[in-house]
Parts: sequence; C-alpha cells; structure tokens
Amino acid sequence: MATQGQFITCKAAVAWEANKPLVIEDVQVAPPQAGEVRVKILFTALCHTDAYTWSGKDPEGLFPCILGHEAAGIVESVGEGVTEVQPGDHVIPCYQAECRECKLCKSGKTNLCGKVRAATGVGIMMNDRKTRFSIKGKPIYHFMGTSTFSQYTVVHDVSVAKIDPTAPLEKVCLLGCGVPTGLGAVWNTAKVEAGSIVAIFGLGTIGLAVAEGAKAAGASRIIGIDIDRKKFDRAKDFGVTEFVNPKEHDKPIQQLLMDLTDGGVDYSFECIGNVSVMRAALECCHKGWGTSVIVGVAASGQEISTRPFQLVTGRVWKGTAFGGFKSRSQVPLLVDKYLKKEIKIDEYITHERTLADMNEAFDLLHEGSCLRCVLDMQVQG
Amino acid sequence: MATQGQFITCKAAVAWEANKPLVIEDVQVAPPQAGEVRVKILFTALCHTDAYTWSGKDPEGLFPCILGHEAAGIVESVGEGVTEVQPGDHVIPCYQAECRECKLCKSGKTNLCGKVRAATGVGIMMNDRKTRFSIKGKPIYHFMGTSTFSQYTVVHDVSVAKIDPTAPLEKVCLLGCGVPTGLGAVWNTAKVEAGSIVAIFGLGTIGLAVAEGAKAAGASRIIGIDIDRKKFDRAKDFGVTEFVNPKEHDKPIQQLLMDLTDGGVDYSFECIGNVSVMRAALECCHKGWGTSVIVGVAASGQEISTRPFQLVTGRVWKGTAFGGFKSRSQVPLLVDKYLKKEIKIDEYITHERTLADMNEAFDLLHEGSCLRCVLDMQVQG
Repeated sequence: MATQGQFITCKAAVAWEANKPLVIEDVQVAPPQAGEVRVKILFTALCHTDAYTWSGKDPEGLFPCILGHEAAGIVESVGEGVTEVQPGDHVIPCYQAECRECKLCKSGKTNLCGKVRAATGVGIMMNDRKTRFSIKGKPIYHFMGTSTFSQYTVVHDVSVAKIDPTAPLEKVCLLGCGVPTGLGAVWNTAKVEAGSIVAIFGLGTIGLAVAEGAKAAGASRIIGIDIDRKKFDRAKDFGVTEFVNPKEHDKPIQQLLMDLTDGGVDYSFECIGNVSVMRAALECCHKGWGTSVIVGVAASGQEISTRPFQLVTGRVWKGTAFGGFKSRSQVPLLVDKYLKKEIKIDEYITHERTLADMNEAFDLLHEGSCLRCVLDMQVQG
Repeated sequence: MATQGQFITCKAAVAWEANKPLVIEDVQVAPPQAGEVRVKILFTALCHTDAYTWSGKDPEGLFPCILGHEAAGIVESVGEGVTEVQPGDHVIPCYQAECRECKLCKSGKTNLCGKVRAATGVGIMMNDRKTRFSIKGKPIYHFMGTSTFSQYTVVHDVSVAKIDPTAPLEKVCLLGCGVPTGLGAVWNTAKVEAGSIVAIFGLGTIGLAVAEGAKAAGASRIIGIDIDRKKFDRAKDFGVTEFVNPKEHDKPIQQLLMDLTDGGVDYSFECIGNVSVMRAALECCHKGWGTSVIVGVAASGQEISTRPFQLVTGRVWKGTAFGGFKSRSQVPLLVDKYLKKEIKIDEYITHERTLADMNEAFDLLHEGSCLRCVLDMQVQG
C-alpha cells in the first residue's frame, strides 16, 4: 500500500481533557513498529468504559487520548515480525490481548493475557514505550490498547482478531466488547446449566447479552432487574421472562428475589457497576450453590462487601472480563456464530451516526433507549 | 435397654449464662420422640464455635444451654420411625444434618441440609419444638442440634452418622467438625489439583487439616501463615512447606505472598474467622484463577470487603461449611479412611481430660499449643 511505512494523517476524536467535548482533529498515526498492526477503523461503537474514562473518574485515565475499544476495520500495514495478520485482513481490535505465550495464556484457566498490559495500561506501545498518535508533534495517548475513535489506529499484534472477511463490519464491531462480555459471563464464567433460574441486574447491552446467553443455555427463568420499566419490553426479545423494578417494592431486592424463587436464584449477574447492587446480586443467590458474577465495572476506589456467612453457606462470588473469551481465538468464532444467526448483533444497534457525531453519541449512551450507537468512521459529515 | 422410654439423669456441663464458667449439673434427658435418637456420649472435643457462643458474642446463642458438637458415642434408644440407627450403634452426632429429601440435599450441589435448621438454630427439637434437656423442670436449650457436653444427648435422626464399631471413639470424635472441615475445604470446595500453590491462614486444627488435605491432593507448595512462629514446627508434620509470619514483614501479607509466588497462590484458605485476613486471603490469589475459601467463622455483624476488580480479574471467593461433606453419608467414610491410616486424627489430639475438666479445656483452647482437647465424658473425676 502507498501508505505503508509512512505517517498517516487522518481524523480522530481526541479527548484533550476529562469531561470536555471530544474534538475531531487531524492526527498523525505513525507506522507500526515490530509486533504492531496499523488498522483502518471502519466502524466503532461506544461503550460505558469510554464514557467512564472520559468523565475523569478513572484514576488511570490519561489525557490527551483517543478513546474507543469496540470496533472493526481492515489491516493497513504490519510491523516487523507480524505473521498472523496481513494488509487487507478484516479484524476486530481486542482490548484484552491474547499472546498464547505468557503464564496466564498458557494456564488454560483464564483469558487475561498479561503480555502488553504494562504498556496499554499507561497509554503507550510496548516496543518503544511511546505513542503512535501525535498532533503537530505532541503525543496523544492510546486507550485500552485499541483507540478506535480514530480512522487509523495502531495495536499490538496480540490485540487483534482476524475475522471472516464476509462479515459486515458495521455489525460485528460490537464483538469487540459488550456482547461477548455478556454471553461469556454466562457460558464461560458462570457456566449456567439448563433449567437454571437467572437474575440479571441492569438491562443495558451487557445485561441483554447475558439474557441472550442464559436463554441459549436453557435457563428456565430469566429475571431482569432494572429501575426503568421501559426496558422490559425490549428485554423480552433477548430472553428475559420476568421483570422486577426494585423501586416498586419496599423489600430489599435480594429478599424479594429470594421470595420469588423459593430461596434464591441459581445465578446472578451484575451488569451495572454499582457496588450496592453487586452485594444484592450475591445475596439473592440460593444458599448452597448460587453463584454471582460481577460483570459491571465499578468506579475506582469503591468496594464490595457482604457478611462472610453468605459465602460460608455456599454462595460463590466471581467476576468476568470480556466474558472469559480468549480474544484472538474466540472473537472470530463469535463472528461465525453471528453469520450463522446463532447470536444476535443487529438488535443491539439502536443508533447509527458518523465520526462527526461523536459527542452526540456520548450523550446517547446515557439515554435509556440507546443500547449501542455505531459510528461510521470514514464519513466525516 | 432399661433406660429406654425413660428420662435419664446424667451429668452435663451447662452454660447457664454467657461468659460464666460451665457448671457440671445433673440433667434430665427426655426419651427421644419421633425421628429422634438418644446418644450416650463417650468422648467430646471442644471447638472454637463452642467458645464463641459461650462468650456471648453469638447473637443466636441461647442460655442456659448445653454446648458441644464434636463427639462420638453409642445409640441408647431411638424414637418412632427411626430406621437407620438402633441401640448399640456407634455414631458421630453431626451438626450439619443430611435428610436426603429436602431441596438442598437433592440438589447434588451442597451439603447444607435445611430440614431441621429451623429447630436447631433456636435450640429445640423439631417434633414438638421443645428441648429434651431439663434441670428440675427448667428447660435447657440444645446447641447446634448436638449438645455433646452431656453424658446423654438427643439429636434428630438426620443428624447422626453411623460408623464402624471398631473405630476408637476417643479419636474419631474429631470427625464431628474440625478435621472434616479442613479436609473438605480442600477436596470438596476448592478442589485443589496436584501441583497447586496453597496458602493457609491460621495453623490451628482446621488450618492443619487443610494442609493435610492439600498435601494429599498433591499441592507443590503449602504456605502456612500464622502470627505464632512456634506453630510452624508442628505444621510441617501436616504438610506445610513454608512459613510466613506477617508480623515479621512490613509489606501487606497479600503483597508478600504475591511476591513469593510469582503473582499469587492458586488456592487460599482462611481458617481464623478474621474478616481482614479473609480479604488478604482473597487478594493473595493469582489473577485469572486464584480461589479463596473462607473456612473460619467471623463474629456476628462483621463484613468482608474488597475491590470488585479483584473478582473481575478472575479471583473467586467461596466459603465452606463442614468442608462440603454430606454428614451422614461421608463421615462414616472418613472414619474408614482413618482406620486405613489415610487421614490423621491422633496428631490433632494434644490434650485429654474428663468431663469434670470442662472449664480447663476451654482455657486450653486459647493456648497456641492446644489443637484438640478430648474429654472422656463418662469419667467425672
């Protein structure tokens, strides 16, 4: 390609500082170094983690930066030593890397690869511990190792999943974060069995993906809990069978759920990021075996708590990141499942915009009616 | 037997009020009603749960009562409908019942039978919701459904395990609580695999039983943590390979253990009942898979807490009660294992006394050198 080995100047939404509107800027994107891949981002969605860091509440947030971590694109060029993808490959950038070499990858017990975390956690690339983004020479930090709010981004080769080129990128971009997180929380982390009673706290994208996963696993009852009753109609389409609005009851929600289920649910999922709800999610579980999975991300510094008796009497407290899916190995399989109509994606996309509408898209994220807003990154107007 | 159907007057150590010395009294023990078994207790040990309730800190503690829950004896008589044991059978009373009929027993997922809990939790028998102990007509409460600090006790038939009559009761009485709790925490709850790195917080009876269980499971490193260095020599005999005294280090214990183990342990066990230690035990676990099991019983009202990030990054928080063993089914198998020298018991017995020494035995419990003090209940002097 003509751009290979060259800086590319393109448009990106830059977060100059916390809680200030993003600015569409001309950004210089350096060529990929050894072990890196430069990707032309075609479509990106927004996720609450972008908004959380943007808000300034994330103590690890670094500014200026380019946010974004749920996207799809095409490899533009690769750095030295990169063998698993080549220019033209369709890919999904993965904030959760998979190197297949580190202790964690080789354990067979987790998807949490540790290889590039020390770099991606501080907004830089591992090779030279610098950024690949700059504006008039001023470095702009990466975010989550993905930075998909740019028309071109550079990622580590362990952080990019090669997918079926026939898959529609404007849809499968959602497989970069929310949908796999919910499905995997059910299939990989909780391992819900047929006939189980499931409670889902929070009926946003992740909660609905949990419902979809639980339905596929054969759950007998899928109880959706949300303070917005309007979300229930939509949730039914994803598998939710019953709805509870904690605001409509005086009892603590955990007690209410135990009463509704003859002693508690078999599995619960916290999909909000609220530590009080995490406690309720644990405590609504059935004595002896109920398992609660934390899926939502709580604000920094917040803590969960409960009486140890809850665990001594057989409840299990777990969490999940990216649903336990190994990113490079399993995201392509999820794409295939979508192509075979075994999992939903289209139904999560409630809004479509372009790169120019980035700030509006952030506003949409906070509206109950919005699940995912997909931005066409190559259209600027 | 001559006593069948009659009240039996015998000696028992009565806790008249919290935190006051127990008094050896003549107690009337009523005959067993339907579904009940009267047991002549030959040997009982003391456990920290007895001391906790005796201290008055247990809000569910009821006085006057007869404490004790780690014992062995011989069936004296049985009530109507009791078919699984008969007079003369050697038995271990089990504070954790197993009815094989309730939702919990039938789940196949837990040992926490619910059948008699509503009665045993309030110191009475299920049949008539009264006690079988009295002194001059004044009822004395049961404790944990066992009340083994009496020469005769009455238990529900679902709370008594029939064992090999050749087993020495002065030894196997320990299979009523502490030893199975530790072994089962490893074998049933954590399911430790060969090669695992294990951390044990607290090297009392339960901690040592965890070590024994971990050694049998093939753990590669068994790290004992205690603030009393003297406990280490003894702990080696139970399988502990390394010793850490938190008081000898400035670093938080979780950080120290992570440094010692290249990122954390595979399994940790809290065997103290201290909520701060429970947090450390979770946080010293390896990212991605480390599992922490709460075995100790915390004081009422105390809470555990941590950052949810600890769980989201793959740690699992669990607890265990009676090591997950199904009491009536599995205690007899543990007795058989002891007879085949597959598990230790003798090594946990550091002191032997008689019923008359009950108060001294409570004092011994708080000495670091004492693991289990076994009382001969039929000797009064």
